[in-house]
Amino acid sequence: MKTMQTSSLTLVIALLLLPVLQARAQQEQKWAEEDTIFPRGEKIENDHFNGAAWVSFLIRGDSTNQTSVGNVTFEPGARTNWHSHPAGQIILATGGVGYYQEKGSPRRVLRKGDAVKCPPNVPHWHGASPDQAFVQIAITGREHGPTEWLRPVSEEEYHR
Amino acid sequence: MKTMQTSSLTLVIALLLLPVLQARAQQEQKWAEEDTIFPRGEKIENDHFNGAAWVSFLIRGDSTNQTSVGNVTFEPGARTNWHSHPAGQIILATGGVGYYQEKGSPRRVLRKGDAVKCPPNVPHWHGASPDQAFVQIAITGREHGPTEWLRPVSEEEYHR
Repeated sequence: MKTMQTSSLTLVIALLLLPVLQARAQQEQKWAEEDTIFPRGEKIENDHFNGAAWVSFLIRGDSTNQTSVGNVTFEPGARTNWHSHPAGQIILATGGVGYYQEKGSPRRVLRKGDAVKCPPNVPHWHGASPDQAFVQIAITGREHGPTEWLRPVSEEEYHR
Repeated sequence: MKTMQTSSLTLVIALLLLPVLQARAQQEQKWAEEDTIFPRGEKIENDHFNGAAWVSFLIRGDSTNQTSVGNVTFEPGARTNWHSHPAGQIILATGGVGYYQEKGSPRRVLRKGDAVKCPPNVPHWHGASPDQAFVQIAITGREHGPTEWLRPVSEEEYHR
């Protein structure tokens, strides 16, 4: 009789816990889905990046407004090569933890909510921190020509 | 004896549920805090808006790059007046449900992840839906002059 009673109570505990655990799992699932505002897009397959990165083009420049907007996701450790933009660039950090460095300045850490204006023709690089991915919106004017790509960021520069 | 046993088991159930419920509450709290990427900023106090809206300026245009970026939050029902931008505007929807309409076109519903390019000098308005707030990033070139503000959006236009 006592064994039966204990079994019943174990069942009651399990039944009580089930919806709470389900709700928690759903909450976590929702969080994971909604954390990223824009789609991750296509994997970047050119030689100007070190490590895996993805881009989705949100707005493409045209003759009426040459500003382009892209959502870029870097896996931990991934970064661009050094490069510069003839019309400058604006970076909005929307998720994770990233790095940003302009030539001649110390490396900065970027977190969700940070905004950076990189002046025209100033070499810089950006990417994820070693342990966390980084998601950013890049806003780039095309009116003075294309991005100028430079050499890769060395391990020493990345970790300095 | 049976009463004591039942009380102990009730206590066990409560102790088992406690950390699960705490974790769920923390998850919900985290979600609420992280849903908004940029600060809500200051309440907009000019006559170009109908209803309450807030703006935080993320990037201000300067002589090297005249693109400005602002994060705008509209309470449910709030919207801009009709207006146009001499260099056009890009809108990125980051939260809630909003409306966007260009002159001569039907009103569009904007949701998180939508991106809109409004051509130069085309009158348009944007704002929240009646029942849900709307959060957007506005990317605006200032190189051809300031925003031209027009008349308010009528109730008929808003609800059409």
